[in-house]
Amino acid sequence: MDTQLQKVMDTAYACMQACNHCFNECLKEDDIDMVRECIRLDRECADMCQMVLSYAGREGVLQHDLISLCEKICQACGNECAQHEHMEHCQECAKACFACADACRAFVSA
Amino acid sequence: MDTQLQKVMDTAYACMQACNHCFNECLKEDDIDMVRECIRLDRECADMCQMVLSYAGREGVLQHDLISLCEKICQACGNECAQHEHMEHCQECAKACFACADACRAFVSA
Amino acid sequence: MDTQLQKVMDTAYACMQACNHCFNECLKEDDIDMVRECIRLDRECADMCQMVLSYAGREGVLQHDLISLCEKICQACGNECAQHEHMEHCQECAKACFACADACRAFVSA
Amino acid sequence: MDTQLQKVMDTAYACMQACNHCFNECLKEDDIDMVRECIRLDRECADMCQMVLSYAGREGVLQHDLISLCEKICQACGNECAQHEHMEHCQECAKACFACADACRAFVSA
Repeated sequence: MDTQLQKVMDTAYACMQACNHCFNECLKEDDIDMVRECIRLDRECADMCQMVLSYAGREGVLQHDLISLCEKICQACGNECAQHEHMEHCQECAKACFACADACRAFVSA
Repeated sequence: MDTQLQKVMDTAYACMQACNHCFNECLKEDDIDMVRECIRLDRECADMCQMVLSYAGREGVLQHDLISLCEKICQACGNECAQHEHMEHCQECAKACFACADACRAFVSA
Repeated sequence: MDTQLQKVMDTAYACMQACNHCFNECLKEDDIDMVRECIRLDRECADMCQMVLSYAGREGVLQHDLISLCEKICQACGNECAQHEHMEHCQECAKACFACADACRAFVSA
Repeated sequence: MDTQLQKVMDTAYACMQACNHCFNECLKEDDIDMVRECIRLDRECADMCQMVLSYAGREGVLQHDLISLCEKICQACGNECAQHEHMEHCQECAKACFACADACRAFVSA
């Protein structure tokens, strides 16, 4: 597999884990009211990363398009999570989202 | 496709839609604090129904086992949703969950 | 749910079933050599339909984009299957693919 | 995340990639006739690994059961692939399947 695609997959794998962990922790937050959008985006982002993991490496017709959508949702989820400065799971999630978005952007623009 | 399997699929399709709708509405509830477990189970149940939809009809090795797990999570999600008597989306979701659980049980025990 | 989106979901559900059935039957064909691309596209199309089923109704950020990709892969899969005139599962699959592509196109251009 | 669960995820990630690569290469084999079952099981195993990746780390109700099913399909897929001694992708796939099956077994029996 080419290096850029493997980078997309590895960051998507890390991002999916971070999003699922964040989803889980958000549901336990005392202040769940302020992480509603986070919960929604964590799920959407995790599902998209999972889709990319499943498609990448199959030489599929949609690979390029899906990685482009993955960049979009990782950016959105990262932006949302980054706002919650006092929640460690959100900060970690934002970091993983931005790393995946970067890898997707590099792949798509190559 | 045999009738019982088609019934599993059709109820799983309806259940997945009901769970995703419920997930969505729960995230908008003023009283989000009391639907934390509902949100978690809605996602888990929707994903499992989706898995059954994807596997059923492929004559896969795991079809029987997956339908058995689907019964388990539908029952759990239905029980949780049923408790929220004043939330229409939860009541509808519980109904769809129990219908799917019934269809799965009938298939597995056939 | 709006009518056009429900149409997308119902045709995607039928299409996913047709693709999985076609995938299954192609793997049993004496002349498997000529359905290689069909097998690959059946899987990719079924997975994309499944993704749309999972996302639609959640008011997700990517809903519109995913339905647009679904149209693309349904068209590709339908075109491939349509060529195998003597295989009933391919003809049925092509029909379901084109119906889903039509519904996706109507939704996206609305 | 506990070590055994992380092991399940890492081997499931590698197994999913190996299965998708094998699926892809099998569809290009001159002797596609002898890898029919391999193609079917590669898809089923990849999907199951993907499911485990998606569920693990969410503290879900079904986590234990899904990892148990993953062990079953990895074993089945590994046994099938292992028979094709002259196909490198099948040998690699078998290796990844057995590694994942081992990790699942260790987790489930812990």
